[in-house]
Amino acid sequence: MLENIHSPADLAHLTENELYQLAEEIRRELIRTVSENGGHLASNLGIVELTIALHRVFDTPADRVVFDVGHQSYVHKMLTGRWNAFHTLRKYGGLSGFPKRSESEYDCFETGHASTAISAALGLARARDFRGEKHQVIAVVGDGALTGGMCYEALNDAGNSRTRLIVILNDNEMSIAPNVGALSRYLTNLRISGGWQRAKRRVRHLTEIPVLGRPLYRLIHGTKKLIKSVLVREKDIGFFEALGFQYFGPINGHDISSLESTFEKAKLCSSPCVIHVLTKKGFGYEQAEDRPEAFHGTPPFYIETGDRIEVPDSPSCGHIMADTLADMTRDDPRIVAITAAMKLGTGLDHYAQSYPKRLIDVGIAEEHAVTLAAGLAAGGMRPYLAVYASFFQRGYDQMIHDVCMQNLPVVFLLDRSGIGGEDGQTHHGILDLAELLPVPNMTVLSPCEPDELRDMIRWTAEHDGPCAIRYSKAVRNLPDTEAPRPPFTFGKWHALRTGEHFVILACGSMVSEALKAEAVLRGENRGGTVVNCSTLKPADTDFLASLSPDIPFFTLEEHMVHGGFGSFVTDECRRLNLPLPADCIGISDRYLSHGSHSRLLEDAGLNAAAIASRISRYLEEHGKCPKK
Amino acid sequence: MLENIHSPADLAHLTENELYQLAEEIRRELIRTVSENGGHLASNLGIVELTIALHRVFDTPADRVVFDVGHQSYVHKMLTGRWNAFHTLRKYGGLSGFPKRSESEYDCFETGHASTAISAALGLARARDFRGEKHQVIAVVGDGALTGGMCYEALNDAGNSRTRLIVILNDNEMSIAPNVGALSRYLTNLRISGGWQRAKRRVRHLTEIPVLGRPLYRLIHGTKKLIKSVLVREKDIGFFEALGFQYFGPINGHDISSLESTFEKAKLCSSPCVIHVLTKKGFGYEQAEDRPEAFHGTPPFYIETGDRIEVPDSPSCGHIMADTLADMTRDDPRIVAITAAMKLGTGLDHYAQSYPKRLIDVGIAEEHAVTLAAGLAAGGMRPYLAVYASFFQRGYDQMIHDVCMQNLPVVFLLDRSGIGGEDGQTHHGILDLAELLPVPNMTVLSPCEPDELRDMIRWTAEHDGPCAIRYSKAVRNLPDTEAPRPPFTFGKWHALRTGEHFVILACGSMVSEALKAEAVLRGENRGGTVVNCSTLKPADTDFLASLSPDIPFFTLEEHMVHGGFGSFVTDECRRLNLPLPADCIGISDRYLSHGSHSRLLEDAGLNAAAIASRISRYLEEHGKCPKK
Repeated sequence: MLENIHSPADLAHLTENELYQLAEEIRRELIRTVSENGGHLASNLGIVELTIALHRVFDTPADRVVFDVGHQSYVHKMLTGRWNAFHTLRKYGGLSGFPKRSESEYDCFETGHASTAISAALGLARARDFRGEKHQVIAVVGDGALTGGMCYEALNDAGNSRTRLIVILNDNEMSIAPNVGALSRYLTNLRISGGWQRAKRRVRHLTEIPVLGRPLYRLIHGTKKLIKSVLVREKDIGFFEALGFQYFGPINGHDISSLESTFEKAKLCSSPCVIHVLTKKGFGYEQAEDRPEAFHGTPPFYIETGDRIEVPDSPSCGHIMADTLADMTRDDPRIVAITAAMKLGTGLDHYAQSYPKRLIDVGIAEEHAVTLAAGLAAGGMRPYLAVYASFFQRGYDQMIHDVCMQNLPVVFLLDRSGIGGEDGQTHHGILDLAELLPVPNMTVLSPCEPDELRDMIRWTAEHDGPCAIRYSKAVRNLPDTEAPRPPFTFGKWHALRTGEHFVILACGSMVSEALKAEAVLRGENRGGTVVNCSTLKPADTDFLASLSPDIPFFTLEEHMVHGGFGSFVTDECRRLNLPLPADCIGISDRYLSHGSHSRLLEDAGLNAAAIASRISRYLEEHGKCPKK
Repeated sequence: MLENIHSPADLAHLTENELYQLAEEIRRELIRTVSENGGHLASNLGIVELTIALHRVFDTPADRVVFDVGHQSYVHKMLTGRWNAFHTLRKYGGLSGFPKRSESEYDCFETGHASTAISAALGLARARDFRGEKHQVIAVVGDGALTGGMCYEALNDAGNSRTRLIVILNDNEMSIAPNVGALSRYLTNLRISGGWQRAKRRVRHLTEIPVLGRPLYRLIHGTKKLIKSVLVREKDIGFFEALGFQYFGPINGHDISSLESTFEKAKLCSSPCVIHVLTKKGFGYEQAEDRPEAFHGTPPFYIETGDRIEVPDSPSCGHIMADTLADMTRDDPRIVAITAAMKLGTGLDHYAQSYPKRLIDVGIAEEHAVTLAAGLAAGGMRPYLAVYASFFQRGYDQMIHDVCMQNLPVVFLLDRSGIGGEDGQTHHGILDLAELLPVPNMTVLSPCEPDELRDMIRWTAEHDGPCAIRYSKAVRNLPDTEAPRPPFTFGKWHALRTGEHFVILACGSMVSEALKAEAVLRGENRGGTVVNCSTLKPADTDFLASLSPDIPFFTLEEHMVHGGFGSFVTDECRRLNLPLPADCIGISDRYLSHGSHSRLLEDAGLNAAAIASRISRYLEEHGKCPKK
């Protein structure tokens, strides 16, 4: 059936049975493609019926739908003319895993980070009113995203404005990690009204039946009347109404007919309303229902077992980080770990196995996480906040204002720094050095292999000030070199290989590429020195002063050139009246798309071959070039 | 009496009448000092009794009090041994206008930006629990700050954690600007319970009596019994309790005895609680009660009339901005202005006089403001967001993720860029270029005088992408030069004065200092060229290419060196294989304190004399130095 859906208009004539059959086809396609390409599975399985109902009731693209975070937009993509391209999902040049305006007019606003959709939708709704237009604007927001403060800022403004706007609260009882916080408890209270309890028992019973190839939907269809009773609100809600929203729900999010009739009611509202929809993450795929957190974002897996196809061969930075913190916590009662709904992604789930009470998960709330860490540090603790580099952007002001100005010993562990890969544009951590390096009191480190991360984290225990350590998934053990890597020494840079024609000051994941590039050049009789600059700030000015003015030196980083390490080294050299870098190699002033890490590295000109040829060209152009 | 208060312990033995007498002395001192030094008056007048009660009930500094924003900590400073130094408030080398840990052990956590206190206090409270300590932790938060999302993230976490923590909600019905948003309406509903209405009528009656030198407090003392009825909660509250907080209030915040008895009750709570206190901004000074927004942050004024002592002689950038937007709105229905509780500070109150419906004030909610602007732009509008540069840090992620990645035509008007002056460290806008310049698609402009700002804003109407314009209070009309300033041309730099020994590439407020520095050097037979670089990004690469390699050139900015304009120009020159700047003049890697703008400029080495001598020294050291 899916092959006949060229646009949402093709959904109009389907019978209810056909709709559930379509939902089953969509699920099969979701599971097949994500098992091959990796991606976000559980959230998309949970939103199939909701998305079908949305596109039947609302008149997209005239009506605007904004998906919060956007990783749950796969079904939307399938229904809006991108079904044929769906097998290219998250591949270089293929469909993005998030809404993209360049992909389709049905993607009206791009997302990637959580909690932005209500703000964006309110902007679209106000623009509609200013322009005298009439269409609907809908924000689809998960309950996890509601732990982010900016949702609340937007609800406050929207409720006050009386602007016509529909917020669909997709309540799957889980954000990326199981949901934390008082609001989550509050939503739970909404859920435990009697009618919903009855309906839920029925749904739970249904979902225990393995689903693929089974006629699940006829059964659900049969329960519709029962579940409909949930639509009737049983008591006053308070929260959303206090904020000026009309409230509908809770509704069974796997019942298309209930969804449609509620959406029709919401269309008639002349002021903001919220529709509280209950869905089950991973619905229809047993493995994902059982372990929704593992199937939030997943690498390729075997459909039958749910097991990952490739298991990494060397320990990841995340695991090393968690193990190191656990080791340190044994002897140091000051240590406390913090995450913002990223326990699994950062590796802190391992830490929690040993020290569950020493891990604070604040939900998707990076602003609060950073200032909470500052408060803990001011109270005598040693907080370690592990967060993805691109999400850390949310805590920028707090990092400056609460941590660095007071020079408090907070350690930021910035995972997924550098090019992030398949998640694409919104998830690359390629502006973090621009955030960190200009801020007074901040120390910035970056390990070239996981063992170095261990030494760095140990060092921070005695450092009396803020510190950020950036690392990426790409950081693995270095290839064997002629000599073992000197251990991490704060503030000191070490040459890993020595040659006479050039020097590369490399940091983090780029040390390994620099070694490979140097090997290429050495093969051409143009060998040079490769330096592991594991302390980015403060720069090793002794090392800089020791460089020969006759040998050109280059900086190399998996980061934007502007505001990056090379820029910082240049400033330091100029301050000290030393020769400046010959070239600063990094990402030029543009965004990077999605695809494999190695493909994007090539795209950015940061793989070994590109680095080698760039240095070669410099040597040739500047007459510093021995014969090949 | 105040002269006998050396520490909070000295408050213990005072009678109730003496306490009110003390409160009156404090008010007199607040008015006197702020009328001379400028500062935050209305909020401090509103919190006198609350601060006295805090320091009588709680055992500071063992108990920790965190003041949100911190501009209302003047009374706290007077009561904690800083009474004698109070006349130095906000002066260079004197007391800060905000809590400072270096000033006193009673200042346990520094603030300046809004909405951080609950997060910080929760960190302090958790640290206390981890360390097995027993003291109290109190956050004092204004109702305005509650429009900031991170408060909500913190309330959510605190409510869930069950950590013992006292949040005092200082509800003065006004943040910086009259409070906006649905939450504000909600608080209003709390206030309109019968008992409070009766009490408030009585308070309003009292406050109509001019207060200085009048025995107001005996009257209030007499009304205590009446007001006490407010302490009895009349119905369920919902909001705070839903978040897991025990709720006390609302309480009359000018009644010391009510405050003390409620604080004593709160001390007994074993989980988080909120105390809802009602105060009147400007209480006890008629001018401030009538115009609390004008007396939020005020320059020196005449006590009798409340009029400002100095009226600026040339139009400010804020007024020019508002007038220009109003002119454009006449012909362009796409224009909409946004502010985050800074209508008066940014000048948008002038705009609102002409186009009240085209101004959206979202409250203290910069994150939402930025994404709302992105939504408006995606919906076909042309949003202009006016915000102080240091507060814009809150919208950093949203600026990248929602505006720049989608290349949407949002214009950020960054007021108070550069060195902010008396508000000090937290309010300087000296990291904004580091935020903006590395971000792809972003255009950055900075006017050297108010008229240039007008031309820039007009230009943005036809620019299809994000743009930030940074300007400071210090930007005034340029001194007369030999030729009139060429009008703003996007992407083009213009020399304002020409000489042979050096070139200064200056931006924004520094153009005027560069002209003065050049005049000094010209007098020494070392004249040079001064360039107004009004487009910071994209850099004028034709101009850079036209520079003679024999003449050293300097960049000059009121911003950190790292990540600033000089750094950016260097990157661009290197990319184009052009000579690099001889020196980048800006603020070195440290924070600046508070004081007059000119004193801080001197401190940073950015006044004309320092610039001239730095260039002179360079010319001498590099043998490019004609005889003086």
